[in-house]
Amino acid sequence: MDEPTDDDQLRDDEHGDDSVDEAAVRAANRAFYDAFEARDLDAMSDAWEHTDRVTCTHPGWRTLHGWGAVSGSWFALFGGPGPLQFILTEEVVAVAGDVAWVTVDENLIGVDGGGTVAAMNVFLRAGERWRLVAHHGSAVASQS
Amino acid sequence: MDEPTDDDQLRDDEHGDDSVDEAAVRAANRAFYDAFEARDLDAMSDAWEHTDRVTCTHPGWRTLHGWGAVSGSWFALFGGPGPLQFILTEEVVAVAGDVAWVTVDENLIGVDGGGTVAAMNVFLRAGERWRLVAHHGSAVASQS
Repeated sequence: MDEPTDDDQLRDDEHGDDSVDEAAVRAANRAFYDAFEARDLDAMSDAWEHTDRVTCTHPGWRTLHGWGAVSGSWFALFGGPGPLQFILTEEVVAVAGDVAWVTVDENLIGVDGGGTVAAMNVFLRAGERWRLVAHHGSAVASQS
Repeated sequence: MDEPTDDDQLRDDEHGDDSVDEAAVRAANRAFYDAFEARDLDAMSDAWEHTDRVTCTHPGWRTLHGWGAVSGSWFALFGGPGPLQFILTEEVVAVAGDVAWVTVDENLIGVDGGGTVAAMNVFLRAGERWRLVAHHGSAVASQS
């Protein structure tokens, strides 16, 4: 082409369509929480990259490393008595090339007085998919 | 070159030297904590990307978005009475192309009975530098 491309076009050429990427990341994040709430280990397994570099920090827990330890934690949580149903709010998605990070509030249902976990999820693009490589959740101190 | 390159060479061509990248990320992470402990706002500002997409979750806090809110939180913390001296342990660095995530335990000095914050820091490559785009810390429940 002889015509100069504008900045927007250049950005599209480099990184693809931002809105399409964001939608795909939102879908991956949604799939993670669907698996979480359904206590579905197969779906949870499908949401994650299965490597040593994945990391997961549940609220109050020490950080876990590697898919073996991380999958074990989901097995334990899914078998436990804790409430795993929540309303997600404040979801914010950022995409930069082949990485995306999502922050979201997990508002637990069935916890006395309500309980909110602030979470960050990091996804890497894997072909047409986005897979979790990191999840970190922390309890938000209740407002007094 | 007529000689076929092996897989390692291909990886080097694509992503640079992994050990060099890891060292640079460790240095960026160290600079963040040096600024943190020194309550040095200029150095803290230098450690971060100054964009709307940065995110920061301090232990017990709601998630903050954008450099304005994030820098304000460091201003408040640096002016506050809380202990900001810690010993870092369990640092694990993962690099994937132009993104890196670091998990590390911040073991606070001067907290009765000791206090540990599990942290995750996400860095993006910016030319020769790595800049923070996300920090998330959560208190580790004390072992009884």
